Amino acid sequence: MQRMEDIQLHMWATPNSRRVSILFEELELDFEVRPVNIRAGQQFEPQVLELNPFGKVPVVTWRDGDTRRVLFESGAILVRFAECRNQFLPADGSARDKTLAWLMVVLTALGPHSSQAHHWSRLAAAPSELALQHHKQLVKRVYRLLDDRLSNAPYLAGEHYSIADIAAYPWIDVWEWTTLNIRDFPSIEDWYQKLRQRPAVARGMGLPLGAVLE
Amino acid sequence: MQRMEDIQLHMWATPNSRRVSILFEELELDFEVRPVNIRAGQQFEPQVLELNPFGKVPVVTWRDGDTRRVLFESGAILVRFAECRNQFLPADGSARDKTLAWLMVVLTALGPHSSQAHHWSRLAAAPSELALQHHKQLVKRVYRLLDDRLSNAPYLAGEHYSIADIAAYPWIDVWEWTTLNIRDFPSIEDWYQKLRQRPAVARGMGLPLGAVLE
Repeated sequence: MQRMEDIQLHMWATPNSRRVSILFEELELDFEVRPVNIRAGQQFEPQVLELNPFGKVPVVTWRDGDTRRVLFESGAILVRFAECRNQFLPADGSARDKTLAWLMVVLTALGPHSSQAHHWSRLAAAPSELALQHHKQLVKRVYRLLDDRLSNAPYLAGEHYSIADIAAYPWIDVWEWTTLNIRDFPSIEDWYQKLRQRPAVARGMGLPLGAVLE
Repeated sequence: MQRMEDIQLHMWATPNSRRVSILFEELELDFEVRPVNIRAGQQFEPQVLELNPFGKVPVVTWRDGDTRRVLFESGAILVRFAECRNQFLPADGSARDKTLAWLMVVLTALGPHSSQAHHWSRLAAAPSELALQHHKQLVKRVYRLLDDRLSNAPYLAGEHYSIADIAAYPWIDVWEWTTLNIRDFPSIEDWYQKLRQRPAVARGMGLPLGAVLE
């Protein structure tokens, strides 16, 4: 993983993709964006499926000597690139524990529950109020947890900005998709505004240039 | 993390808890099970919330010198204990990439989608056929992906048994919750039967002694 040349990030304007573009900007990596328009179904085209059989973005590829390496799943990409540069994920001890624990809360609860609330609030061809209310309750439980955590610590893992924050930020940015109101979670909102000031976050959130997603 | 004494695993007969009991059995750790009956709401009792503010199991605590360390989220526990013992998660290179990528598929898709299908198939007080069908389709997409993967490799990460398999097994064990039929996914079924023969898997799946969950 030490030799990483010709890094390509296959992404769209999705929260999961932007976790990776934010991290790459924070790490000041030199990378090329390859847009994959998921609303046009490009994630199911053969050249993307060959990289990720799940048919999802983000996917990262890079040259390592004579081979081209591939890595999919935003969580795996965050862990590996943070480890490689020894930034935003402590190498051991209690600090690593806390970072991984909060990263997992974000990856397995904030992301999936926000996504399902988004489906039932905006995307479903046949709406279900029952389903929307159920999934809104699940995501609200996560928002309450994060709000409580951020009222006691400046960042999710504690004292330091980490990949747990980077994984959470693009999902909090689309809080309107969940039908919750971020103003009901003041510590999340303060944290959001603080991260928003980071130039790398702003750059990462602007990729791919010109792409939008509703 | 090297000194781990008096390990306590707070768990119930849930797939996420059994990821950890299987790993601990595979690592031949000496640990004490502390049952937390989630159908009786014990995960919201103060002594559990103090360990995990999310009110979920599994949670692990252990003594490290003069302090008692705490770690929650099954994915974080798998990564940390595998790293600590240098087993079931390669330390670097492409093998680590593949293990983390498939682990993340299992943590962020197989688990959450199976859980939601379970909610709409068995637990919801007010059922919704629309919601059940939607979440069944999501979990079916994951089953197809895993079945395809396991038709090309003996284990999820490739040649070697890893924490990706350990994270997946207890969710495949409850395939009936999803309303899918495991017989439609022959490579998953073969893998499931192979893992079932491992004594550590059988021991981990038997914990907590006498506990059941529907």
